[in-house]
Amino acid sequence: MYAAVLSDHLRVIADYRDPAPEAQECLVRVVSAGICNTDLELVKGYMGFQGVPGHEFVGIVEQGPAHLVGRRVVGEINVACGQCDMCHTGAPSQCRNRTTVGIDRHDGAFAERLALQTDCLHVVPDSVSDDEAVFVEPLAAALEIPQMEPILPTDDVVLIGAGKLGLLCAQVIKLTGARLRAVVRRERQIDLLRRWGIEPVGIDDIAPSSVDVVVDCTGTSEGFAAALSIVRPRGVIHLKSTYVGLPHADLTKVVVDEVRVIGSRCGPFPAALRLLETKAVDVLSLIDARYPLQDALIAFEHAARPGALKILLDVTPREP
Amino acid sequence: MYAAVLSDHLRVIADYRDPAPEAQECLVRVVSAGICNTDLELVKGYMGFQGVPGHEFVGIVEQGPAHLVGRRVVGEINVACGQCDMCHTGAPSQCRNRTTVGIDRHDGAFAERLALQTDCLHVVPDSVSDDEAVFVEPLAAALEIPQMEPILPTDDVVLIGAGKLGLLCAQVIKLTGARLRAVVRRERQIDLLRRWGIEPVGIDDIAPSSVDVVVDCTGTSEGFAAALSIVRPRGVIHLKSTYVGLPHADLTKVVVDEVRVIGSRCGPFPAALRLLETKAVDVLSLIDARYPLQDALIAFEHAARPGALKILLDVTPREP
Repeated sequence: MYAAVLSDHLRVIADYRDPAPEAQECLVRVVSAGICNTDLELVKGYMGFQGVPGHEFVGIVEQGPAHLVGRRVVGEINVACGQCDMCHTGAPSQCRNRTTVGIDRHDGAFAERLALQTDCLHVVPDSVSDDEAVFVEPLAAALEIPQMEPILPTDDVVLIGAGKLGLLCAQVIKLTGARLRAVVRRERQIDLLRRWGIEPVGIDDIAPSSVDVVVDCTGTSEGFAAALSIVRPRGVIHLKSTYVGLPHADLTKVVVDEVRVIGSRCGPFPAALRLLETKAVDVLSLIDARYPLQDALIAFEHAARPGALKILLDVTPREP
Repeated sequence: MYAAVLSDHLRVIADYRDPAPEAQECLVRVVSAGICNTDLELVKGYMGFQGVPGHEFVGIVEQGPAHLVGRRVVGEINVACGQCDMCHTGAPSQCRNRTTVGIDRHDGAFAERLALQTDCLHVVPDSVSDDEAVFVEPLAAALEIPQMEPILPTDDVVLIGAGKLGLLCAQVIKLTGARLRAVVRRERQIDLLRRWGIEPVGIDDIAPSSVDVVVDCTGTSEGFAAALSIVRPRGVIHLKSTYVGLPHADLTKVVVDEVRVIGSRCGPFPAALRLLETKAVDVLSLIDARYPLQDALIAFEHAARPGALKILLDVTPREP
């Protein structure tokens, strides 16, 4: 089958081995998949991953339990063991023995087919389009912010770093009723935020030590420093991106101001599907371009351009 | 009056100006006071403080409201404005306009008398001795850990850095019923921990990513790195000391493992007094030496020795 395969570099090949699903797995034909910042990092060597990347996708079950065959599905990316303490305490996304689809020892969705544990699959309601369904995974990750620590309707929230994921986080936070401002520089993002009723601001517009909740989607030392400078005493900083290297962090300010710093990663798929069903979140506006799987390298180049939002790979698109 | 006064260096003088209490203040005769790590830092230039240090004390009210005159008191160190958002949301210790006794623009307790806002004073029950009462302030700071985020009886907790404050934190955590181990090297601390039924361990004895709650009392980059290495996914790290400089911090691990990092500072005095009343916490074993106020410089030298625990200044001791 066709697949984009990462070894020392990314290439598209026509004869990648077809996945052979095991007993607890389904075989899924990939309809469409999204390129995420993590994919761009994988190509640079993150996680030392080898194989097929791609973890944001929608597909059709070709083999598996009868009630699933022919159904349109999205898939959670953490393939959990079901046996460890994290699985037993309701946190399978933190499973100690997990593989991660398209990221860690598990082939992903930039291929015509993938095999995936049946437990990871969620049927997509008819009212959610293929393009929308591709966003279930990152939207669920955005929902992990309030899942880790509720955001209150009375909170004054600032989001820093409104890229692909940040724009989803912003929309999720907006739904809480909280006041939300987003620190952003690019015109495209400013336009999107304004359309969604979210106030774009510069970091200097925000009074120091004034904000209840800061969401740092920057993944940079400077972003975290900015978050610390604007969060109020007893406030919360959510970390939503992995950081390049080992950033400096003013932990003394965390102590003196009694700040909570909360990391979050993968989130709840059913909640993301519910928000897409009711069109409470606009994901389609984030799509910048789409390419066939065969043009995956061009698609990756496009995704890596500064300011690029979501690039889709149409793997085996359905009839329109 | 006699006072230990910090300007470019610390000295004891006999003719420091007597405090002149304002309408909302009491005049307190200091009976005894404790030297804290913060005091040692102040002498090195922390906060740029000038004046009388000392913020752990017990004293007798000499002037103030009739119901307080002659009573034995301890004092909260944050003198709050009562007007700002932090005061209005029940967090006066984080008051935006606060002065801090013996630390920031407010003379402290290493003097025969101090003036202190009446609202900051708490009457000490007869069953709590003068020596015990000196520990109310740091014991309250230890209690701020579960005040910020409850520690559950089922939690597996590791404390790193069992110095003066760490040994109080350990005892407070032990009272929750949680399993508690403390990473410590000095024989003295090991003996104390064993006496209190707390298991002393080496950091290498603890399985990586295994601990529900880590309390980092080290104030060092290495301490925080150790905390991150042993905390489990979705676990909590409490930061209890200020840090020297700007430590490196593996924020990526905070994100990927969905860790909560929570700073805490000053805590609830009434709860600390209740624990001292019932002798649920052993503070007297932490006293290493006592000096008259006139020997404050020798006392500071002693307090700065590696491994030293609490050094008291007997300012105007009561008749035995």
